[in-house]
Amino acid sequence: MKHTRIATLLETDHLLQDYTVKGWVRAFRSNRFIALNDGSTLANIQCVLDFENTDEEIISKINIGAAVKISGVLKESEGKGQRVEIEVNEIEILGEADPEDVKKTILSPKRHSLEKLREQAHLRVRTNTFGAIMRLRSKLAFAVHQYFNTQGFYYVNTPIITASDAEGAGEMFKVTNLDLNNPPKTKDGKIDYSQDFFGKETNLTVSGQLEGETYALGLGNIYTFGPTFRAENSNTSRHLAEFWMIEPEMAFCDLDGNMDLAEDFIKYVLNYILENCDEDLAFLEERLLQEEKSKPEKDRSPMKLREKLKFVTENNFKRVSYTEAIDILKNSKPNKKKKFNYPIEDWGADLQSEHERYLVEKHFKCPVILFDYPADIKAFYMRLNDDGKTVRAMDVLFPGIGEIVGGAQREERLDVLKEKMKAIGIEEEELWWYLDTRRFGSCVHSGFGLGFERLVLFATGMSNIRDVIPYPRTPQNAAF
Amino acid sequence: MKHTRIATLLETDHLLQDYTVKGWVRAFRSNRFIALNDGSTLANIQCVLDFENTDEEIISKINIGAAVKISGVLKESEGKGQRVEIEVNEIEILGEADPEDVKKTILSPKRHSLEKLREQAHLRVRTNTFGAIMRLRSKLAFAVHQYFNTQGFYYVNTPIITASDAEGAGEMFKVTNLDLNNPPKTKDGKIDYSQDFFGKETNLTVSGQLEGETYALGLGNIYTFGPTFRAENSNTSRHLAEFWMIEPEMAFCDLDGNMDLAEDFIKYVLNYILENCDEDLAFLEERLLQEEKSKPEKDRSPMKLREKLKFVTENNFKRVSYTEAIDILKNSKPNKKKKFNYPIEDWGADLQSEHERYLVEKHFKCPVILFDYPADIKAFYMRLNDDGKTVRAMDVLFPGIGEIVGGAQREERLDVLKEKMKAIGIEEEELWWYLDTRRFGSCVHSGFGLGFERLVLFATGMSNIRDVIPYPRTPQNAAF
Repeated sequence: MKHTRIATLLETDHLLQDYTVKGWVRAFRSNRFIALNDGSTLANIQCVLDFENTDEEIISKINIGAAVKISGVLKESEGKGQRVEIEVNEIEILGEADPEDVKKTILSPKRHSLEKLREQAHLRVRTNTFGAIMRLRSKLAFAVHQYFNTQGFYYVNTPIITASDAEGAGEMFKVTNLDLNNPPKTKDGKIDYSQDFFGKETNLTVSGQLEGETYALGLGNIYTFGPTFRAENSNTSRHLAEFWMIEPEMAFCDLDGNMDLAEDFIKYVLNYILENCDEDLAFLEERLLQEEKSKPEKDRSPMKLREKLKFVTENNFKRVSYTEAIDILKNSKPNKKKKFNYPIEDWGADLQSEHERYLVEKHFKCPVILFDYPADIKAFYMRLNDDGKTVRAMDVLFPGIGEIVGGAQREERLDVLKEKMKAIGIEEEELWWYLDTRRFGSCVHSGFGLGFERLVLFATGMSNIRDVIPYPRTPQNAAF
Repeated sequence: MKHTRIATLLETDHLLQDYTVKGWVRAFRSNRFIALNDGSTLANIQCVLDFENTDEEIISKINIGAAVKISGVLKESEGKGQRVEIEVNEIEILGEADPEDVKKTILSPKRHSLEKLREQAHLRVRTNTFGAIMRLRSKLAFAVHQYFNTQGFYYVNTPIITASDAEGAGEMFKVTNLDLNNPPKTKDGKIDYSQDFFGKETNLTVSGQLEGETYALGLGNIYTFGPTFRAENSNTSRHLAEFWMIEPEMAFCDLDGNMDLAEDFIKYVLNYILENCDEDLAFLEERLLQEEKSKPEKDRSPMKLREKLKFVTENNFKRVSYTEAIDILKNSKPNKKKKFNYPIEDWGADLQSEHERYLVEKHFKCPVILFDYPADIKAFYMRLNDDGKTVRAMDVLFPGIGEIVGGAQREERLDVLKEKMKAIGIEEEELWWYLDTRRFGSCVHSGFGLGFERLVLFATGMSNIRDVIPYPRTPQNAAF
């Protein structure tokens, strides 16, 4: 008899029929009530055992963490807390779990810290919290693909291993196949990369944007969704050495169109999980409420999790120029009262999360898109405005988190682009192919990047980015 | 006025209205007919210019490769070859393309070899062939996500950077942040990886399977779809150093269920492109026919491209044990006549592509799933059969290509798994977390891996795997 997923069973109207379920024991109360979970959904199904007529040896093995197969009749539940339950006819232990061993793991039924859960990242997905996070992460990823597919964007897999460091977005990891204990050397004693696998020095990509642009200038609208890397020694709750990035790029699209897309896209994917993941969201919302009780009142989020998501999906994003934002911040109360860690003094300052959050949470009370940033604090490929000092960059700012999307209209003029590259020392030969796109039918085009884990962080209400990716990579940590 | 995608325009019934299109000039005939393409679809839209009333300077810039904006009325076409065309009212050159420069590129209107196109991989997506391939690749990827989402599988991003080489599927790329010209050394003169970014030696993953298993044993059904790497010096038309892999994994599922899934999944995604990409498929089918004309008759494919896809979607996959397959091959004509490059002599032989293709194309005349392979030629984590010499492995074999899917029921018994690891020298400490899954509620589970580029190769009828990924990584090549 084929087994039925618990998610299906909990929603079916076909009661009083025989079903088989397979899952892991989450609890076993009064020698009678088994709470069984198979990961398909947050809720357990309650299986009611006929203690008198069940083999003692089997009962001794119904321990937390054990895998069991249960067949029985689905009935309306007389107890509280569940609509239906299974009256067990047959139970089989598929995989035992020794209670003494379980005690040493996070499967044991007590509160474990998130740090502890991270140390057992291979087991944490079997907890309610991480089951919910990872299901939600999966649904968000699907919403991303569904959105772009529906909108006529093509998915492009840009290369992970790359020979160029043109984005200059941070330190890169080197990729090599050389015997590092005995590497080939050139005459002047340096590593001879011409003997490496690719015949030159290679790194892990920090962004697929430049390659993405080449594809947008052929296919029209494209997006990437793949892993990117930063070898930055940042041991914070917001940085990962390996994370997944979404980067759409659109030909014949200016910054306004780019802002339209960012807003529409974000609203779509968050609406998707509001509609499709309510059970997990409700659980995570409650978890957050509990967590925040331990914080001083002023540090607590003023909104509940789903409220925060709706704050984004139901408000228009306010579009504000950088210059206007600086004015607002300069004259703001926290700035005057020196409450910002980084006081805002002059135009040209790079904004910090505290400033971004002030604009969103206190000033505008809605998501904000800042645009037209100073050229000096943005990347070389962003389109220079006629004022000669700002570029057509945009950042989308969220409550509680600050910047979540960074994008720009790209510099489509060959001469301007070449000058900017020269100014920061990028050789034309290194990016000959990128410049080619400006030689052969160049056009206005735009795109943005969204760190997927930042989005999952926002959507789940978790506070450490290590808790929203299965196996986080951070300084000193590549376990599993 | 917002522009309309050409794909939309070519299908609309709203004629005699004004539209604006933006795209790249593919051809300009008789100073009158512009063939415009924007990548949204294979077909160009014909734009008919009023030569007399168009500025001469503009006309001089309507060159192949140039980006233009055209506004005009959509009308039924009087000419052959298209249903509708645009009568141009306004034309603007957005980005020029110097004809002399274009001549040096693959954008020039003549036949370029696939090798030449690879050298200009940043421009090849603007050709009909690569536009078609990359749109199809994108649609196939979406079908993958859609299939698994619909079937209740959760998408899991397993780590790219990993500290374990347990799969042992081939040479791995090293990932490091050390200054290789001046690396820290241990007392005995070796590289001191404890000072590296992750505090130990790390590599690029060859498979997400082991981590995928840990998630299946919590969420039930999961799949991965991400980049994997092989540092093998294989300069063939079938190998990439960087490629994308799809790996589903199912708890409470045996080898039969695994075969069911593989067959159902492959049929779904190929049906999806048959239904959604007919124009691109028809073009690629014709391209293949032309290409095959240059081959000797015996090397040509007996089936056209879409026939080959339907051969897979419309036939039941024949399930045959390895032992039975060896018997068939041993007694086959090509074996007796010594036509195989690798003659089949004894049970235990590893099958080559020629054998797999013989089984599919000549013997069974349908896709084949071989199962129960000799343990000696398969990985340690595959479930040992009671005969003690075969494992519950399966390979799906396709016409023209041989193996396209490799999978197995996993060894769920802790003691057997430990013994097999010991036999091949994998330390238990290295895979403590993997072994934990067999300690805490272990269960029958199965999964498979599918190299995405192999699937795209099959679906597009291309013969070199470098032509189905935007920027291929191969020995001596990490350009772009």
